Amino acid sequence: MSTTVHTQVAIVGAGPAGLVLSHLLAEAGIESIVIDRRTREEIESTIRAGILEQNTVELLRRIDPATRVDTVGQRHDGIELRFDGEGHRIDFSALVGRSVWLHPQHEVLKDLLALRLSLGQDIRFGVTADRVDDAESESPRVLATDAEGEPLEIVAGFVVGADGSRSVVRATVSGARDGGYFREYPFAWFGILCEAPPSADELIYSNSAEGFALISQRSPEVQRMYFQCDPDTDPAALDDAEIWRTLQSRVPGTELHEGPIFQRDVLRFRSSVARRLRAGRTALVGDAAHTVPPTGAKGMNLAIADVVLLADALEALFGVSDERPLDSFEERALSRIWKAQHFSWWMTNMLHVAPGASDFDRRRQLGELRSVVESEAGRAYLAEGYTGWPMPGR
Amino acid sequence: MSTTVHTQVAIVGAGPAGLVLSHLLAEAGIESIVIDRRTREEIESTIRAGILEQNTVELLRRIDPATRVDTVGQRHDGIELRFDGEGHRIDFSALVGRSVWLHPQHEVLKDLLALRLSLGQDIRFGVTADRVDDAESESPRVLATDAEGEPLEIVAGFVVGADGSRSVVRATVSGARDGGYFREYPFAWFGILCEAPPSADELIYSNSAEGFALISQRSPEVQRMYFQCDPDTDPAALDDAEIWRTLQSRVPGTELHEGPIFQRDVLRFRSSVARRLRAGRTALVGDAAHTVPPTGAKGMNLAIADVVLLADALEALFGVSDERPLDSFEERALSRIWKAQHFSWWMTNMLHVAPGASDFDRRRQLGELRSVVESEAGRAYLAEGYTGWPMPGR
Repeated sequence: MSTTVHTQVAIVGAGPAGLVLSHLLAEAGIESIVIDRRTREEIESTIRAGILEQNTVELLRRIDPATRVDTVGQRHDGIELRFDGEGHRIDFSALVGRSVWLHPQHEVLKDLLALRLSLGQDIRFGVTADRVDDAESESPRVLATDAEGEPLEIVAGFVVGADGSRSVVRATVSGARDGGYFREYPFAWFGILCEAPPSADELIYSNSAEGFALISQRSPEVQRMYFQCDPDTDPAALDDAEIWRTLQSRVPGTELHEGPIFQRDVLRFRSSVARRLRAGRTALVGDAAHTVPPTGAKGMNLAIADVVLLADALEALFGVSDERPLDSFEERALSRIWKAQHFSWWMTNMLHVAPGASDFDRRRQLGELRSVVESEAGRAYLAEGYTGWPMPGR
Repeated sequence: MSTTVHTQVAIVGAGPAGLVLSHLLAEAGIESIVIDRRTREEIESTIRAGILEQNTVELLRRIDPATRVDTVGQRHDGIELRFDGEGHRIDFSALVGRSVWLHPQHEVLKDLLALRLSLGQDIRFGVTADRVDDAESESPRVLATDAEGEPLEIVAGFVVGADGSRSVVRATVSGARDGGYFREYPFAWFGILCEAPPSADELIYSNSAEGFALISQRSPEVQRMYFQCDPDTDPAALDDAEIWRTLQSRVPGTELHEGPIFQRDVLRFRSSVARRLRAGRTALVGDAAHTVPPTGAKGMNLAIADVVLLADALEALFGVSDERPLDSFEERALSRIWKAQHFSWWMTNMLHVAPGASDFDRRRQLGELRSVVESEAGRAYLAEGYTGWPMPGR
């Protein structure tokens, strides 16, 4: 049975971008329907890391009195850069008066889903968007298939693709065969989750001759750590002892707390930006619009910045029929996106050992790391990028 | 007729490094002989650009009351970064309270030669060093050929290779077949000197889609400008009209003052660092030890920083027989050299368009330029590197 529903804004994707957007729109009196091909349980159990910029945290606190970002999340006032056998703290609080919060994305999603559902948001799980029609008209339509396999048509005043890196909406906005601006890196991260207490209070970004390692945290009992590996590495190929040996050798000076490893994965490093973020009454936000390598910790934050900008544009469109903020949305969003792409590229290149790097490259890289840590301006420049530039405004 | 002379320090090369070193040594009561394969006229007429860091200027003022750095040289309190059709000033004075001086290297050399000769320095022109013997002994010897083709042997307590990028002394210190740490860039600068008044008050570093251009100054009547070109470009291949068209297209927004072009050259971009800077009683300084691409304006300044450090070490060696400063010379010098290599690499990569750069690379680069100019910390970090880190000390 085919069903047609009407709404002001159809949001494809119930990730952080889609859910925050639905909230900001509701605050402005704009109705939306959110669909996601996954079930609620799947969304809440897909474990993904998360570093939240102060901007993002402030937004979550404002929109959700019950947010657990300050209880489950941990505030970090700095990170450590380690190289040449020595650690150097980048003291975010002292340098820029800002912090970041370590708070996994699925925890953010649990809160946002509970918030939106408690406020009566129409969220439809298990609904797969197939395509967007009439994107350039005043009534774009999302053609989808619901959990029972029945067709669902959403006729809206605006369609938002917040449907992640494999976005279906992107084909409509940016062209089906357009791969966008793209860069792939010749390495990946081998990530583990293990049962062990934290090995460090803050994140350690370690550049070692054998490659990069990141010592992160998750909770008092569970830790997350990563080390640079070949992108074709099979996560099952290394035994626990090898993993610990590799990690330990890359953070000389810190004795890692070992424990049973219960998850292991290989994260490929890709940077991408769609060639267009908006076509008529359809726009892309979050991973549908861009992906960044994880080194800069920008992913979720950039998605939130996108929707702040888009919510503002849609408020002007639906509230007072002012299309100008929408017309400048793409340019304003890209301005931040390319800064974030650069920041992610910079952190990645400064910290990883590229396969085939020459002795010159390696020493130049250590010269760069020293230039940054020995300079208050250098440390502040890094801290600004890491803790997040000011939120976009009109 | 073979001649043998004795001195405390034999300095090969009468460039800025060798001449400043001879002065600092004389101040410490250490005698030296400077040799150079060129005549005095050749040295004084080899036109080379020069940006002097404040440190360098302060040293020249201290050692030479007659220095013309403040009369012929021009103080610059900032530079302009131009990209995406807009100029952004990096205000050195406001950011870091420091400046640079535009003062061609041959003008510096004229002053230094006059200074040293007036104080009785033994400088032997037209003397070509052939090799260094017994470098590791307490009496290293420079074997040379004088202007008449006769052999000259200088027996010294220490030998310094200040003999430029094609250093003869380097083979003794760093190994004959060792190319050192090396990087070549896939582009060069096409440089011109022309008879025209300045087109801008300060240097303009312009990143344009067609490639980099640098609008510099020389004097009220003569200007120096550069544009990125293929390293295999024949300087004679372009006519004046093409040169002006190229330059003008790369600095939109500025109308260049054109005039007769009387010198044109192609500068290849190379970065290199010798694998060793010292072997026993022999050391390398300046271009003999390292070369940098011109974008960072570091060449002459890094040479001066080397000799400040080496003079200090030789004063300890000859004055109180303390070898420790000499033993740490290489490590301390390299610390600054690799920062300068990074700074030069950074400025080069941020401003030039690499052949084969993808659309992603290009937009990422513009994102980087915006990140720097929009951030006070970013501008200060650049200004610190450009105006020069503090001079090395023991």
